[in-house]
Amino acid sequence: MAVYTHLSAEDLARLIGHYDVGKLVSAKGIAEGISNSNWLVETTGSDGNGARFILTMYERRIDLSDLPFFLGLLDHLSAKGVPVPRTIHDRDGASSRMVDDKAVALIEYLPGVSVGHPTPEQARAVGIALADLHLASTDFALTRENDLRPRDWAAILADAGAGAIGTIDRALPSVIEESLSDLLEHWPEDLPSSIVHADLFPDNVLMLGSRVSALIDFYFSCHDITAYDLAVTHVAWSFTAGGHDYRTEVGAALLEGYQSVRPLSQSEIAALPLLAQGAAMRFIATRIQDWLDTPADALVTRKDPMDFARRLQFYRRDGEKVFNA
Amino acid sequence: MAVYTHLSAEDLARLIGHYDVGKLVSAKGIAEGISNSNWLVETTGSDGNGARFILTMYERRIDLSDLPFFLGLLDHLSAKGVPVPRTIHDRDGASSRMVDDKAVALIEYLPGVSVGHPTPEQARAVGIALADLHLASTDFALTRENDLRPRDWAAILADAGAGAIGTIDRALPSVIEESLSDLLEHWPEDLPSSIVHADLFPDNVLMLGSRVSALIDFYFSCHDITAYDLAVTHVAWSFTAGGHDYRTEVGAALLEGYQSVRPLSQSEIAALPLLAQGAAMRFIATRIQDWLDTPADALVTRKDPMDFARRLQFYRRDGEKVFNA
Repeated sequence: MAVYTHLSAEDLARLIGHYDVGKLVSAKGIAEGISNSNWLVETTGSDGNGARFILTMYERRIDLSDLPFFLGLLDHLSAKGVPVPRTIHDRDGASSRMVDDKAVALIEYLPGVSVGHPTPEQARAVGIALADLHLASTDFALTRENDLRPRDWAAILADAGAGAIGTIDRALPSVIEESLSDLLEHWPEDLPSSIVHADLFPDNVLMLGSRVSALIDFYFSCHDITAYDLAVTHVAWSFTAGGHDYRTEVGAALLEGYQSVRPLSQSEIAALPLLAQGAAMRFIATRIQDWLDTPADALVTRKDPMDFARRLQFYRRDGEKVFNA
Repeated sequence: MAVYTHLSAEDLARLIGHYDVGKLVSAKGIAEGISNSNWLVETTGSDGNGARFILTMYERRIDLSDLPFFLGLLDHLSAKGVPVPRTIHDRDGASSRMVDDKAVALIEYLPGVSVGHPTPEQARAVGIALADLHLASTDFALTRENDLRPRDWAAILADAGAGAIGTIDRALPSVIEESLSDLLEHWPEDLPSSIVHADLFPDNVLMLGSRVSALIDFYFSCHDITAYDLAVTHVAWSFTAGGHDYRTEVGAALLEGYQSVRPLSQSEIAALPLLAQGAAMRFIATRIQDWLDTPADALVTRKDPMDFARRLQFYRRDGEKVFNA
């Protein structure tokens, strides 16, 4: 959530010159992205009528060998009508370029805002868009493994250690302990898989009213269990702030929208309570890692893993009711 | 340089609804401003053709009673043709509104980028724009005292203490000591005064090629010695990174551009070497304050006061030559 690298106007103008987008008119560093620097860039446009783009510089966490997957997927989905921003290719056809030792990509700007408190109608639209994404990605040629699967959460949590985790919240170690082995033992192996977004929080969806104008930030996308992506999205959209209360109508609308495009099989429905617990555990694990890696006085707001411990406990208790209703 | 407050899409839409600017289409938090949160906001526009604005939320350091001065000055200068963004007034005519307990203002978006390594031609254009600002502000009705005058730098430096200052750089206390009393004793009292920008660094000037498209960030503007503002701008524009080398042609072009609009008197020219040393000391003082207030591991890049200690030493040595040539 920052701009980590300074790019001068001269750097930016030189970079923009490699694309057929006209001349640089404006560039504002924007406070978006997990570990990238981003600029909202305005140019005169290839036709002189003005154009806007998001310029992303890949700073950390992103393996450069994954960029063709991430950027190619945007083009693939966009060509199939899924609302995602296209990658702008340079005059040589490349989807990314290097600036000094960092990769950058120029990405289509799409309008819309991220909602803070989604309505059922908005959740339904997101369910539809997620199912569209799953169906449209089946014939995408590149592959990427998920590096945040159950064994990875377990490794992150083991590295952190119950002692350190208990300093974040005294209740946290036992919440993890009572679920983790269950997840590792019973994680489904034979459900349909596909490309998944794997991080479709409201922050990563731009909306205009109740219409989805863009799904963004595909930097966790990979191949995994298709219904797991629906579980992640359910965990991300269906609770009040802090994960304190389940929002019944929002959760139901998300599932209903999704199934209106891609009906779930009986085995997928049966797995959803466990997949949702896993989705909650995945965010517990990485939030714990980030929390323990961030100095307490770092002027950065640390995200509380308890927000997802509460969701995990909800799905353990009420998951069957929510998904099998 | 951050977004300190989260405003949801719903908060933003509600806020935008108080202005005659159409409906909210997009909002991106931008990494600009010293101690405010800023968003680049796009709306459908009052005419349906789209419009863009900067939404500023005043977080710290800004005394709310100063807002009519800052926002009124933008309107005053803009009406006189100085390239500054106008304040957008709400349907009740107010230039600022409260959101929860914080003031916000909607400000015109102007194109342009901040240059990193200015050319003499660009420095000349900035000199002209600064002189235009000085002349256009003479009949502005509101006043604001400078709260960063020599006695204030001296107080900041005394509060910090030579011991702590020496931990930043061992050379720093003596650089300050050899100049500070000189500045306090000889600071001119009878030079022409006017409204000054007082912080016109390249970051606060948007340019399109060699044209100034906007002077921005007026949150240090106040009444003070007119030539002091030229000195601040000279200190800010005429050196290589870190203040290591004086850029003769850039400094000369800035002075030449300024004087093409507002010729300096003999007493102003004679005072410039001392005013420039004072301008360097003003930034040394606030950078020391920020440095000592920021934890070393705060994930924020601290700005080195030595960048301005080098400039101060340059003006002590060569100031007469630079300004009296």
